[in-house]
Amino acid sequence: VVRHESLDDDAAAIARAFRRAADDADLVIASGGLGPTLDDVTREALAEAMGVPLEEDAGARQHLEAWAAARGRKLGPSNYRQVQFPRGAETLDNPVGTAPGIAAAIGRARVFCIPGVPGEMRQMLADQVLPRLAGARSGQAALVRTVRTFGMPESVLGEKIADLMAAGRRPRVATAVRSGIIDVHVHASGPREEVMRLLEADAAEIRRRLGPVVFGEGDEEMEAAVARLLERRPVTLAVAESCTGGLVAAKLVSVPGMSAWLLEAVVAYSNESKVRRLGVPETLIARHGAVSEPVARAMAEGARGTSGADIAIALTGIAGPAGGTPEKPVGTVWFALAHAGGAEAAQYVFLGDRQHVRERAANFALDMLRRHLVRAATGRSP
Amino acid sequence: VVRHESLDDDAAAIARAFRRAADDADLVIASGGLGPTLDDVTREALAEAMGVPLEEDAGARQHLEAWAAARGRKLGPSNYRQVQFPRGAETLDNPVGTAPGIAAAIGRARVFCIPGVPGEMRQMLADQVLPRLAGARSGQAALVRTVRTFGMPESVLGEKIADLMAAGRRPRVATAVRSGIIDVHVHASGPREEVMRLLEADAAEIRRRLGPVVFGEGDEEMEAAVARLLERRPVTLAVAESCTGGLVAAKLVSVPGMSAWLLEAVVAYSNESKVRRLGVPETLIARHGAVSEPVARAMAEGARGTSGADIAIALTGIAGPAGGTPEKPVGTVWFALAHAGGAEAAQYVFLGDRQHVRERAANFALDMLRRHLVRAATGRSP
Repeated sequence: VVRHESLDDDAAAIARAFRRAADDADLVIASGGLGPTLDDVTREALAEAMGVPLEEDAGARQHLEAWAAARGRKLGPSNYRQVQFPRGAETLDNPVGTAPGIAAAIGRARVFCIPGVPGEMRQMLADQVLPRLAGARSGQAALVRTVRTFGMPESVLGEKIADLMAAGRRPRVATAVRSGIIDVHVHASGPREEVMRLLEADAAEIRRRLGPVVFGEGDEEMEAAVARLLERRPVTLAVAESCTGGLVAAKLVSVPGMSAWLLEAVVAYSNESKVRRLGVPETLIARHGAVSEPVARAMAEGARGTSGADIAIALTGIAGPAGGTPEKPVGTVWFALAHAGGAEAAQYVFLGDRQHVRERAANFALDMLRRHLVRAATGRSP
Repeated sequence: VVRHESLDDDAAAIARAFRRAADDADLVIASGGLGPTLDDVTREALAEAMGVPLEEDAGARQHLEAWAAARGRKLGPSNYRQVQFPRGAETLDNPVGTAPGIAAAIGRARVFCIPGVPGEMRQMLADQVLPRLAGARSGQAALVRTVRTFGMPESVLGEKIADLMAAGRRPRVATAVRSGIIDVHVHASGPREEVMRLLEADAAEIRRRLGPVVFGEGDEEMEAAVARLLERRPVTLAVAESCTGGLVAAKLVSVPGMSAWLLEAVVAYSNESKVRRLGVPETLIARHGAVSEPVARAMAEGARGTSGADIAIALTGIAGPAGGTPEKPVGTVWFALAHAGGAEAAQYVFLGDRQHVRERAANFALDMLRRHLVRAATGRSP
């Protein structure tokens, strides 16, 4: 990628950007500006950059009208803006929305326009754009391989792979952090076979050095790593959450097929709900507070008992901004995991705002579950 | 904003980008590349662009060592890269991480460097950068006002405000879509007082024309709109979810103070859990299927009954990729809301992949709740 630009909804400026991009690159991908409203001007800009007029595409018009009829929707004049295309351009079907994409050429550069709505953008890129690129510059590739980790500070991790991260080395190795997850990216370009060999060797070396904090590769989320372990060795799960308010369950359920393992989740947000739904003794909450090791353990054991699941994870914490005390500052979260052989608990104090605390706490809970599943499968502590 | 660039971790390329940006803009904000690892080269790039050497900052070193000591963390050599700054630059405290920010100048342009970790970036921008910009170009402003809507197709919405969206009009009005939410952005720049007047008039006109589909302004999420209604007229809530797997609850809990209203949420992912936790009759599931109006209603009524909440919302659907049938395709979701006066139900078929279906379904459920609360408060149907 030689350039990434974010542009205003200004047709003349976008046309200039198209021409500049076509001068500097073999491939130009534009997302957004294909909708029905008047600020959607990518069609006009592309036509201007190509030096051709816009024309209605009869096939796209038919497709749009059939789509609307099937859903009982009425089309207004603005919808018909979406079936105008630069002369000579190819239309790309959009299976998940009303805006077709466009494939065209400016000089020697290939140009693809796809919608900006994130769900549509992703699907159009995968279904329409990438397949058309297969075979381009055949034999050459610029690839990235990503090793995902959780639970090791970035500075410690960086020192373990400092030699791989040295400036000028090939492949290039770099780290990126989000919600407590540290990704190690390995980049290289050149002949495809050689690049794949280089990336494979680096990824294996990174996994070896970082060991148990590695939970996956690519864009695999922690919950997918959990699902992979569950597929190999099925057990049933229950979740009891407080400050994360359903986030742990939502992450698990984002994996297709989770219904085979996850029996239920309870967001026991009030103390009353912790008592009534999960059987946490009131005296425990009174004595230790809702954010405490005994209450986290009782929540996990309660969730396991009432659901009949093999394993239950529970967490209770103070996401903020209010509710912190000197002994239990905002960001304090207690975690527990109950299984047939007993229960374990852990505590962590997360920095950052409410959303950051919740997001990291949810990942911490999933990682606790992941490590338990690895341990159960291998007998070794990850 | 005259340019937004995404750059590689290449110090020379970043230094060139700093100089180009300083030529074209009065203000340059760079995020990322301030971490402890060797691919973090923003410090080096900025020093090169400024034409000065890097020097250790004694105050930042002390701050880092105190931070590590308080948390019982050991510092390695790579941590000390984070206390190197271009000579003459100002360091900006980072309250949520180890990487301080940098304030500097290249020629006449002011330059701020802040971390790339999203939570740190947001907090540093708000706490360190924006306050330093107050008063710059005093009296002038480039402002955006955003009216947020849910539930009206973009083409219909666009036609209702087509005259406001006409090319060349001031303020500029544009729409953007995500997860079923359509934002109408109103932009203008010029003398601050005038701009604020223009945006206020347009926002009021847009709210008037779009009416009940408007749920908020700015970056307010649907759940914050719900919380605003609950503050004015408190009722207690319960949630019963299936395919969204905790997402509705997680969105609600993302609002500070939600514990005053939300009693609990149940992710009744298995049929067994729907029966046992929510009291949905097994015969109902057998006769109509888990994704059906009667089951959605029974889930809402069950959640309301067992939690003791005033209002319960429930949803049950097929998020995909598997599980669809010709009568109930992937994306089919049934929603129900139970209250003291009875229950209501709605069905929608969402397009897109699993995450898209879940995200839009969660927003649909929150919007159903929002509309109910508006109706209860005003006696009018929004």
